[in-house]
Amino acid sequence: MEKILSDILNKNDNKILLIVLDGLGDLPNPEKSALELAHKPNLDKLSQKSSLGLLIPIAPGVTPGSGPAHLALFGYDPIENQIGRGVLEALGIGIEIDEKDLAVRANFATIKNNIIIDRRAGRISTEECTRLCGKLQKGMEEINGIPVVIRPAKEHRFVVIFKGASLSPEITDADPQKDNLPPVLVRAKIPSAKRSATIVNSFISRSAEILKDEKKANYILMRGYSRLPNLVNMNQKYGLNCGAIASYPMYRGLARIVGMEILKTGDSIDDEVTTLEENYNNFDFFYLHYKATDKAGEDGDIEAKIRAIEEFDRCLPRILNLKPDVLCITGDHSTPTLLHSHSWHPCPLLLNSRYIFPDGFEFNERNCARGTLGTMKAMDFFPLLLANALKLKKFGA
Amino acid sequence: MEKILSDILNKNDNKILLIVLDGLGDLPNPEKSALELAHKPNLDKLSQKSSLGLLIPIAPGVTPGSGPAHLALFGYDPIENQIGRGVLEALGIGIEIDEKDLAVRANFATIKNNIIIDRRAGRISTEECTRLCGKLQKGMEEINGIPVVIRPAKEHRFVVIFKGASLSPEITDADPQKDNLPPVLVRAKIPSAKRSATIVNSFISRSAEILKDEKKANYILMRGYSRLPNLVNMNQKYGLNCGAIASYPMYRGLARIVGMEILKTGDSIDDEVTTLEENYNNFDFFYLHYKATDKAGEDGDIEAKIRAIEEFDRCLPRILNLKPDVLCITGDHSTPTLLHSHSWHPCPLLLNSRYIFPDGFEFNERNCARGTLGTMKAMDFFPLLLANALKLKKFGA
Repeated sequence: MEKILSDILNKNDNKILLIVLDGLGDLPNPEKSALELAHKPNLDKLSQKSSLGLLIPIAPGVTPGSGPAHLALFGYDPIENQIGRGVLEALGIGIEIDEKDLAVRANFATIKNNIIIDRRAGRISTEECTRLCGKLQKGMEEINGIPVVIRPAKEHRFVVIFKGASLSPEITDADPQKDNLPPVLVRAKIPSAKRSATIVNSFISRSAEILKDEKKANYILMRGYSRLPNLVNMNQKYGLNCGAIASYPMYRGLARIVGMEILKTGDSIDDEVTTLEENYNNFDFFYLHYKATDKAGEDGDIEAKIRAIEEFDRCLPRILNLKPDVLCITGDHSTPTLLHSHSWHPCPLLLNSRYIFPDGFEFNERNCARGTLGTMKAMDFFPLLLANALKLKKFGA
Repeated sequence: MEKILSDILNKNDNKILLIVLDGLGDLPNPEKSALELAHKPNLDKLSQKSSLGLLIPIAPGVTPGSGPAHLALFGYDPIENQIGRGVLEALGIGIEIDEKDLAVRANFATIKNNIIIDRRAGRISTEECTRLCGKLQKGMEEINGIPVVIRPAKEHRFVVIFKGASLSPEITDADPQKDNLPPVLVRAKIPSAKRSATIVNSFISRSAEILKDEKKANYILMRGYSRLPNLVNMNQKYGLNCGAIASYPMYRGLARIVGMEILKTGDSIDDEVTTLEENYNNFDFFYLHYKATDKAGEDGDIEAKIRAIEEFDRCLPRILNLKPDVLCITGDHSTPTLLHSHSWHPCPLLLNSRYIFPDGFEFNERNCARGTLGTMKAMDFFPLLLANALKLKKFGA
């Protein structure tokens, strides 16, 4: 497909709207899923006029993180294009990363007599972490001439970005992995990574100096080195002018990686739909992300997941009012309330355009398994959005 | 599959019949598809005893031309084995092409003071094109010692075959692409194509000489150079002795490319079935092509598409009377009357043998989406025909 796609692209003004209800798929808990239990008259009415199916996020049995799940939905091979932990952590807290940046996950730790006695520095609070990151950043705007950005994540975790120096991620972890071992230095895994190792080691020494009078967090560990994956952006890949609407930084970051323009929006689904309305004439593809379904799934709270679906349902008429040529509603993965976590289950998929077979079903997992679209890998799906928008020409004669 | 297929082939006398109702798949227009609306008692009775499914011609979202769609049905990768425009055009008008031939699409054009003022020579009639091709052929049996075959297509279009010289298709178009530009010479894209470029340029000069007194068509343009793809024939690939029955030249040509024997037949489906009856003992695989469904789809005429299906239905008892061991009825692609063109939609698939689960459904797109065979890529399907004819042995112990 990759081979022929650029040859068959057909530009037109038809609009595609991809709505991702994060973690949408559920399991019977105990008898029915959140989608089966929710009162969602608008979604069901749309569903009856739409084609349904299931999307396998990565491969059968594979539970994805948000990164690979989204890349697959956007039509990128999530196994060939892996996003490193450092980059994902940075995207999750809203740090912008550029091509030449190296992103690293770090922990505050406790060291005593050159032994790491607590790899999490007693799980300090996020507030304390924020204070310590400020202290590090104040003491160190750059290291060996390379600007560094130091930002707090949750509890003892933080992120360091080595800006613009094209440092190699091919270096070993500065983390003994267990408590009560001495600290380890970073080593280059390949010769060209020596400079990277030297600089990260300098960063660690300098941090230890700055933190030396702290009681708990007097040392740091570093791992998950990563650079942005080198992806063809969606405009080049599909000829689409893409706008992204997401209230959480992680999803804005993922959209940025594939070259979408990030539209300023608010915290609620109402805010997101308002952003969609305001920008509707400016793009031919929109990605709209809704987080509440996943959060409820992670909490194992089926009532909250039902409410999240119903809240989306109430906004749906405003979306339909825009009359997108192609409308797709799906999830990036399932987050069954029964599991309190992401899962491997295929995601419910709804596709509406002028060129589909209406299945006549309400929208839920069991009906999707019987839908006209069948079950397919998420990464194979994107061309169907283009086809339904008549944005693909005939292949061969 | 390619890897193991030759090891597991099992020869026997069981007969496989693959019937391709061209462009069979439809869309609701406006409520139901042609297959859903047609009165087809024989097809529906067979369908109820058969397994149903859907075939994705190339990949989700990809609309195929007849060439790649047929290669996929015959079990060849349609992306790895692309058939060039020149070859397809030649097949379409019934010219036989051999391995060492170079096929080229050509236009008659109008030149004045060394400027191409009309790339289509005023869209001359097909009759005029036929006269001009005769004139060219009479004036030029060969060029630089290479025999040439010059045949008319529609209006200003014609086809040139440079016979048996293994000329390279890696040469640039002799076509300025726009009117009111000077003619362009062919250049070699790779060093080994120099001879090819020289010969095509000589052909163009010689044509211009022959045509110099014509008022409109006094020049020619050439493009779409191609050779036959290098395919293992179906006898080698599957151990099958294959006969092809098709009233249109394009489909006879496609069958010839994969090494089927072309059986002489008439224009109607009745003629085609008579050919099948007469040759039934001579082959163990038959490909029978029916064009009327596609034609009606291209015309956007749902009544004609319904009639075409009903016409096939009336012939079906004669086919069933032959008691093929494996009978498959499908399309090469969909040609929805709603779109007036080929489309990306998966094709309805019916498979009958002694070794299937009857789905108990009538034959239409929506039932096929719920059939036992599921949805699969067309190029993966052929081995199922072999298996149902018990022509595949066990893989491994």
